[in-house]
Amino acid sequence: MKTNPGRFFEDFALGETIRHATPRTVTAADAALYTALYGSRFAVQSSDAFAQDLGYPRSPLDDLLVFHVVFGKTVPDISLNAVANLGYADGRFLKPVYPGETLSAVSEVIGLKESSNRQTGVVYVRSTGYDAGGEPVLRYCRWVLVRKRDPEAPAPGDHVPDLLKIVPPADLGAACPPIGAYDRDLAGSPHLWGDYAVGERIDHVDGMTVEEAEHQIATRLYQNTAKVHFDAHAAASTRFGRRLVYGGHVISLAHALSFNGLANAFHIAAINAGRHVAPLFAGDTVYAWSEVLDRAEIPGRGDVGALRLRTVATKNQPGAGFPDRTADGYDPAVILDLDYWALMVR
Amino acid sequence: MKTNPGRFFEDFALGETIRHATPRTVTAADAALYTALYGSRFAVQSSDAFAQDLGYPRSPLDDLLVFHVVFGKTVPDISLNAVANLGYADGRFLKPVYPGETLSAVSEVIGLKESSNRQTGVVYVRSTGYDAGGEPVLRYCRWVLVRKRDPEAPAPGDHVPDLLKIVPPADLGAACPPIGAYDRDLAGSPHLWGDYAVGERIDHVDGMTVEEAEHQIATRLYQNTAKVHFDAHAAASTRFGRRLVYGGHVISLAHALSFNGLANAFHIAAINAGRHVAPLFAGDTVYAWSEVLDRAEIPGRGDVGALRLRTVATKNQPGAGFPDRTADGYDPAVILDLDYWALMVR
Amino acid sequence: MKTNPGRFFEDFALGETIRHATPRTVTAADAALYTALYGSRFAVQSSDAFAQDLGYPRSPLDDLLVFHVVFGKTVPDISLNAVANLGYADGRFLKPVYPGETLSAVSEVIGLKESSNRQTGVVYVRSTGYDAGGEPVLRYCRWVLVRKRDPEAPAPGDHVPDLLKIVPPADLGAACPPIGAYDRDLAGSPHLWGDYAVGERIDHVDGMTVEEAEHQIATRLYQNTAKVHFDAHAAASTRFGRRLVYGGHVISLAHALSFNGLANAFHIAAINAGRHVAPLFAGDTVYAWSEVLDRAEIPGRGDVGALRLRTVATKNQPGAGFPDRTADGYDPAVILDLDYWALMVR
Repeated sequence: MKTNPGRFFEDFALGETIRHATPRTVTAADAALYTALYGSRFAVQSSDAFAQDLGYPRSPLDDLLVFHVVFGKTVPDISLNAVANLGYADGRFLKPVYPGETLSAVSEVIGLKESSNRQTGVVYVRSTGYDAGGEPVLRYCRWVLVRKRDPEAPAPGDHVPDLLKIVPPADLGAACPPIGAYDRDLAGSPHLWGDYAVGERIDHVDGMTVEEAEHQIATRLYQNTAKVHFDAHAAASTRFGRRLVYGGHVISLAHALSFNGLANAFHIAAINAGRHVAPLFAGDTVYAWSEVLDRAEIPGRGDVGALRLRTVATKNQPGAGFPDRTADGYDPAVILDLDYWALMVR
Repeated sequence: MKTNPGRFFEDFALGETIRHATPRTVTAADAALYTALYGSRFAVQSSDAFAQDLGYPRSPLDDLLVFHVVFGKTVPDISLNAVANLGYADGRFLKPVYPGETLSAVSEVIGLKESSNRQTGVVYVRSTGYDAGGEPVLRYCRWVLVRKRDPEAPAPGDHVPDLLKIVPPADLGAACPPIGAYDRDLAGSPHLWGDYAVGERIDHVDGMTVEEAEHQIATRLYQNTAKVHFDAHAAASTRFGRRLVYGGHVISLAHALSFNGLANAFHIAAINAGRHVAPLFAGDTVYAWSEVLDRAEIPGRGDVGALRLRTVATKNQPGAGFPDRTADGYDPAVILDLDYWALMVR
Repeated sequence: MKTNPGRFFEDFALGETIRHATPRTVTAADAALYTALYGSRFAVQSSDAFAQDLGYPRSPLDDLLVFHVVFGKTVPDISLNAVANLGYADGRFLKPVYPGETLSAVSEVIGLKESSNRQTGVVYVRSTGYDAGGEPVLRYCRWVLVRKRDPEAPAPGDHVPDLLKIVPPADLGAACPPIGAYDRDLAGSPHLWGDYAVGERIDHVDGMTVEEAEHQIATRLYQNTAKVHFDAHAAASTRFGRRLVYGGHVISLAHALSFNGLANAFHIAAINAGRHVAPLFAGDTVYAWSEVLDRAEIPGRGDVGALRLRTVATKNQPGAGFPDRTADGYDPAVILDLDYWALMVR
């Protein structure tokens, strides 16, 4: 068999290391496409001159672009037969990535838990993106519900890993150089780290309607091959009846929208937790709101501080009313619940 | 309030200078995306080798790409609460912009005129795009009708500026190096400056249908945040019931179509006047025709001459019949009426 | 007449050489857009580091991207008045093309055959793409059915060229450097040249639905101006009633899909024959399957071998059943039948 059938639950082994295919040189073109797909306006990632004033050698690539490229490589080996992408934890951006860098990815299987009906099982992986020099640039955990090829096959392991709930503030500065001059006019907001209060909620106001061509172009840019995003003919006979938008596309849309209210949150340092609450389809309009969960100093860093943010994305309902978790789940408008650390100048 | 509510008419002050956010490094990727979005075929902007034969160090970015990037920066400060973009005047391309340059923008409020109903007012600005070295690369005036937050608020000024109607020919060569070898086969047309006659009209023949994904990708590339272009959910309850295509997208489409008839008009030197006559929506097909309004020598330049062109864009009606102004307005097919100076080799 | 009406059958002359307009500098941005439009995952074209390990100075541009850019230039002169693009033969990729190269194109008229009804004629051209140094990078033959302006006009020639059916293996290594280290994990498949058997058929499994915005963006990127791809208003009154997808878009989709089963076929060395069997429209889903027609050693090359492949693309029907030629034509699902040589590491 020359084609890749993807792994089923019983094909994984605890502790196994998987080297993923198709290393990718990311360039200024990926950055431009990222801007064109999401309309992101953070100045550090947009202007070499602005980034240099801060202390970067040039504009780093958007953190989420790096995330999507690394994530995309893991799909053929990890989640081709996934029923659902269940969650993320302990995501760390370890090093800025600049245009011209070549990224590759490796995953380690850190947990396996068969479902009680024996049809599926949860696979936990820790995936790491490396640069051409072999240095890690991003590391994160995710867990997915994967089909079994044969329900009678024995479970390949039975271990639920103990994942970190919140990345500690001391680890948040790794990918951020010492920050020099910061021009708030050019950055787009006067509000710095000290201006945000724990508990504060911000409606990001703007909405963005997603087209099939847009999410397909984005998801192919990341070389993510999950067929649910691309094949309308096959999707017609699924329960949704249509193509699903890649969950990472929603994360990037919500983050781009969050500029309006968080313009100075110039770097995502860590992802604490993330959940795709409901699917997004083309034609839907995405809105977002955020809550400040925590505010932390970073040891040894007087230049920047960290905000722990929860950004909630919704579809076809503006963020003004802060649609949220409910007693028995979520407001039906909610599609994403993301808990992350962002850095801001103090 | 952490989010940007945009300025209302009473928030502007005559003579005020506004530094806009998000400087942007433009690269060869923006040029490639511009080609992919409009299909522009002008050889100078397409080929480094061709540009070098003319006397450029490499291909400059398309003049309109520079315009859109600068324009996009002004939107959050000038026209977020605009009812209509009324016009352009005295636009000058002052310096070629090459890939790698970082653009930023500043606007000066040069006029304010409250409407008689006191609900809105016209804001006149002169916006300037700068390169990383602080040199101006583009300067233009535009005026927009902006809502008042409070109709009872006093008008912040009462001055209608006297704007130049036509940029003088002596000012048109600033962004054009002395032109050397020019290969008309590679450029795509044998017709040079001397072959065009004042009064001549050219139907540009071809049509281009616009998709939602296309204008959204373009408008985000320019980091233009005007919500009317992106939010189908909110647009459903407006008088149009749908997203509007950014007017600059129409200008670029019309200019790309004008290659067929004006292939040697390799540089837009100035915009004398421009008006978005009617809105464009996705699904519409854009056509264009042009009229030669004037032909001018540029003092001291034996290599190039200027054509003053009027390019009219229409929707869903080919340019063959030259749909135009009528006794009481415009033919309903007309969407753009643009008066500009283009340079051609003599 | 300032606009290009395109050539009609009687405007061509046997032996005539046509220099095409708009040279084009292709960059890493074109490569990124190509990835975003097709989702191609071949490691050599995706990663500079991987390409360097093999022996390339950096990632070459995808062979088909080079093909489309060269092809696009020929359209305004050769096929603007074409009724149909009938076929390709003797296509040779002669030299790798790297980002930064400027491509131009020249065609020679090698055959002319008037149709019996005298309304049209077949034009045979050999088109060559050149780099900035004047070296040929690609050469191929194609023939198109072109309208006559005047059915009464005498035929401009009467010669059907004898075209090569299969490019000989000795000519296939021109654009491939001596191959060094090849990492099959990173390349995405363990199967090398020796693992494929003549007669073997591979269903490439995945499907890709095409959107109007996608094929328009691609076709404009190639500066291909054929109006059938862009003008929905005019298309409404044609027999199809809608825009046609550029045939080369189908070739690229099929090739990208073929990664799943042919991941190590890293270079298209030659196109023996190609036929667009049926049109593709936006909304259709493309699938592909391939057959190994031959396996050849390349004289003097112990590092790589050639596979002669036939890749068949279908619409709205997966490749599992291998929809194919039938007694009286083709299965109605088939849209492309392409016969080419690809190189693989031995």
